[in-house]
Amino acid sequence: MRSAVIHGAGDVRIENRPEPLVLTPGDAVLRVAASCVCGSDLWSYRGVSPVRSPRPIGHELLGVVEALGDEVTSVQIGDLVVVPFSLNCGACQACRSGYPSVCESMTMVGGLDRAGRQLDGAQGERVRIPLAQASLRPVGLSEADAEARGLIPHLLALADVMPTGYHAATSARVHPGDVVAVVGDGAVGLCAVLAARMLGAERVIIMSRHADRAAIAREFGATDVVAERGAEAAEAVRALLDGDLADAALECVGTKESMDQALAVVRGGGNVGFVGVPAGGPELSIRELFTRNVGVKGGMSSARHYLDVLLSQVLDGTIDPGKVFDRTVPLDDLAHAYELMDDRRAIKVLVRP
Amino acid sequence: MRSAVIHGAGDVRIENRPEPLVLTPGDAVLRVAASCVCGSDLWSYRGVSPVRSPRPIGHELLGVVEALGDEVTSVQIGDLVVVPFSLNCGACQACRSGYPSVCESMTMVGGLDRAGRQLDGAQGERVRIPLAQASLRPVGLSEADAEARGLIPHLLALADVMPTGYHAATSARVHPGDVVAVVGDGAVGLCAVLAARMLGAERVIIMSRHADRAAIAREFGATDVVAERGAEAAEAVRALLDGDLADAALECVGTKESMDQALAVVRGGGNVGFVGVPAGGPELSIRELFTRNVGVKGGMSSARHYLDVLLSQVLDGTIDPGKVFDRTVPLDDLAHAYELMDDRRAIKVLVRP
Repeated sequence: MRSAVIHGAGDVRIENRPEPLVLTPGDAVLRVAASCVCGSDLWSYRGVSPVRSPRPIGHELLGVVEALGDEVTSVQIGDLVVVPFSLNCGACQACRSGYPSVCESMTMVGGLDRAGRQLDGAQGERVRIPLAQASLRPVGLSEADAEARGLIPHLLALADVMPTGYHAATSARVHPGDVVAVVGDGAVGLCAVLAARMLGAERVIIMSRHADRAAIAREFGATDVVAERGAEAAEAVRALLDGDLADAALECVGTKESMDQALAVVRGGGNVGFVGVPAGGPELSIRELFTRNVGVKGGMSSARHYLDVLLSQVLDGTIDPGKVFDRTVPLDDLAHAYELMDDRRAIKVLVRP
Repeated sequence: MRSAVIHGAGDVRIENRPEPLVLTPGDAVLRVAASCVCGSDLWSYRGVSPVRSPRPIGHELLGVVEALGDEVTSVQIGDLVVVPFSLNCGACQACRSGYPSVCESMTMVGGLDRAGRQLDGAQGERVRIPLAQASLRPVGLSEADAEARGLIPHLLALADVMPTGYHAATSARVHPGDVVAVVGDGAVGLCAVLAARMLGAERVIIMSRHADRAAIAREFGATDVVAERGAEAAEAVRALLDGDLADAALECVGTKESMDQALAVVRGGGNVGFVGVPAGGPELSIRELFTRNVGVKGGMSSARHYLDVLLSQVLDGTIDPGKVFDRTVPLDDLAHAYELMDDRRAIKVLVRP
């Protein structure tokens, strides 16, 4: 089968790889219905995270079940399923507490399984998914029906970006009536706007300098756009809010600057939800948090935990997170998908095998 | 009038000072009905926080209103009032949001007022209280009635330690059914135990090596005592919880060790509420918070915000936070009160003028 392998910075190739097979009783083998490129894939593509040896890449997919291990009863052969980007056991304290992303057995799609075996990446034709019983979420529609109803992009967004934006909002304890500022206008930041509105935010400020992204943010419910950065951004927020700051800030980038930005636009006693993968730092000043009574919570999204509520809202048309996909390419043009995202010519690229 | 002044490490004196007067329309002058020594007073007493020049000391009191500025209508002459250790305006965004401790005009009892004038300390006969309108909370009982009902210590605890323990618990989002670990067995830690139970915690683990303090913790609802520290403490918690960790950890000390301890005993996705004044650090690792999905929130307690609920529970006998006072001394023996607390011969000393 054909599947993506990254060889080094700027070098993603589609290669022929062995067909994935069921290796353990907890496995599923899926045919990939749709996949996509994540902002975090660009860390390797840009050489920020060195690629020591060629490895599969891609962790977001919508799939159709082709084979199942004996212990998997939660899905059936032929089911269209959402695959959360992190897989989980369903039984440990983290899973029981609603935090499957910090499951004791947590395994990334496209990463290494618990026995150290390399999984194929989601940017390909087929994948083996361990921990399938607790991880996979059947859509309840056939692939053909989902396709006919135009739901493929919205369902695919549930694999990562939408639950990640939602995690930012729940981590920041967004409540009905809140004013929420979103730092980051990538696909996750845009989904965080949508999530803040789902949780009842009355006003959502997107910090964006890109008209196309700000336009989608407005479709998702953003009420204001702030282009300023740094101290000027906080002043711009105060100008919008009669001198006040935001009740919650959602950090969706992962740099020191973006975390500082989030802290700067949130009021005393407010909350920062952060989902940007911390790129080498920063450390948080506990004295600043103490002095301002600002809370910080976040991390890798517990995607599986949010799938029930998010899926039902996609199916009933309440949310349409797939709008973050502004380009679609066939798998054979995957290298082009990376170029589009690297150059910021695309927000997020959907890949069809 | 007589009032406390700290001159340097180990040197607290009762001195004659001018009678405090109403200086602004927002002031109240109170006669001190009861005061006490705070663990944070010991930072100066022990020389950890240098005393550059002699200054009043003490920020916790229960008082009786003796004089009022023209703008103060929320209390009457003769009222017995709880004075939260931080005073607030009641109008800014922080006050409106339930975080009076980060009020734009926040003023500490015994500190400097907004015009830079030194206030008298609570460890004395009388004090001037600015921002009285929003800050003071009338008890609704006369001093004689409160005395006759034995409520003075419990009401005094509402000035600082009880709302501070409560702030740790609310900041850590303690929910009904939670398992909560409390780091610190001083008066605040003990009150945090009580607060965790008020919020519905099913199991409360106090980390203590002092039998007398652990005994009060049990009276306040602690179900388990862990004497271990460091990695062994986390193992001891796991042993109590069938391999699990606590849903929430309440940090009530303010050292790097105590914060590390709190982080070590909380589960992935759990929350640390911290109220120990950070003594020089630490910085928090954002990568650890990200990886474990652990939230951190806290700081100086919004005491005034919690006073309504706490006062009603003291008055109806539901909570008895004054049990943290294990010694009472007259104001003239204040130096002895400091010695008792410095030597850990007392948990918290009540001072009667």
